[in-house]
Amino acid sequence: MLNIRFLTTGSLKEGYWRDALSEYSKRLGGLCRFSCTEFKEVRLSDNPSQAEIDAALESEGEKILAEFSPRAYKIALCVEGKQLSSEELAAKLEQVSAVSSDVIFVIGSSYGLSPRVKQACDLRLSVSKLTFPHQLMRVLLAEAVYRALNIVKGTKYHK
Amino acid sequence: MLNIRFLTTGSLKEGYWRDALSEYSKRLGGLCRFSCTEFKEVRLSDNPSQAEIDAALESEGEKILAEFSPRAYKIALCVEGKQLSSEELAAKLEQVSAVSSDVIFVIGSSYGLSPRVKQACDLRLSVSKLTFPHQLMRVLLAEAVYRALNIVKGTKYHK
Repeated sequence: MLNIRFLTTGSLKEGYWRDALSEYSKRLGGLCRFSCTEFKEVRLSDNPSQAEIDAALESEGEKILAEFSPRAYKIALCVEGKQLSSEELAAKLEQVSAVSSDVIFVIGSSYGLSPRVKQACDLRLSVSKLTFPHQLMRVLLAEAVYRALNIVKGTKYHK
Repeated sequence: MLNIRFLTTGSLKEGYWRDALSEYSKRLGGLCRFSCTEFKEVRLSDNPSQAEIDAALESEGEKILAEFSPRAYKIALCVEGKQLSSEELAAKLEQVSAVSSDVIFVIGSSYGLSPRVKQACDLRLSVSKLTFPHQLMRVLLAEAVYRALNIVKGTKYHK
């Protein structure tokens, strides 16, 4: 059974995102060992400069990097990443599970992820060309992983 | 102000999707005249044949086509469609608003949309290569349209 871990920055403020994620956590529990760790977002000023944003991403990134174990397969969510279909994501997870039992997905704050975090990951994954709030992205990713694990298992869910 | 209408098939069963959509409906109300019409999904057998699926899509499609007005700009959500960034979707809506005040987005049931509906639309839009449940797709689209209208208006939301 894969250990699947989400490393996320910023909290789920809206009740409906929390409820949706909690439902997916429950469902994922039947297919993998799932956990979601939430790091605090660095507070920025109203009109942050690029330097302020970069410093925040660096500081948020350090906490993420401290959780990276060398043998885990690490996937960074970013808009410039590669898009996979649900079947391709399933194939990727199956392929990874042959060499490692740990998969980490990293979702950044509203300004994304630091270059160091992206470089330390094995894959950069993009969900959409559209921008989505990071709260919703967490729910989207949970759904995508749940579907992919169902494809691996051959259940009916993905139809 | 644009009239933006979602034509959807199947109901939102989960409370968290209903709550999320209701929040976005409220937010969209400040930027456009928003409505969401829900058509009944045709009930299929447990292991439907392709013919059964095609017949269901045809029947669902007829109700959708009956709502199409010639002057509305019609957008079909489908995985083989074109992906747009949030900025590109904003530009498209701005461009459409110069010639029509009505925009219709069509989301199919879990088996998608009939070929006739897709052909009758002005644009086929894809959100992701990943498959998402149609319930979640409705929320995703509401978020995407809300963000796009904020970009058109020049507010801070999309940052």
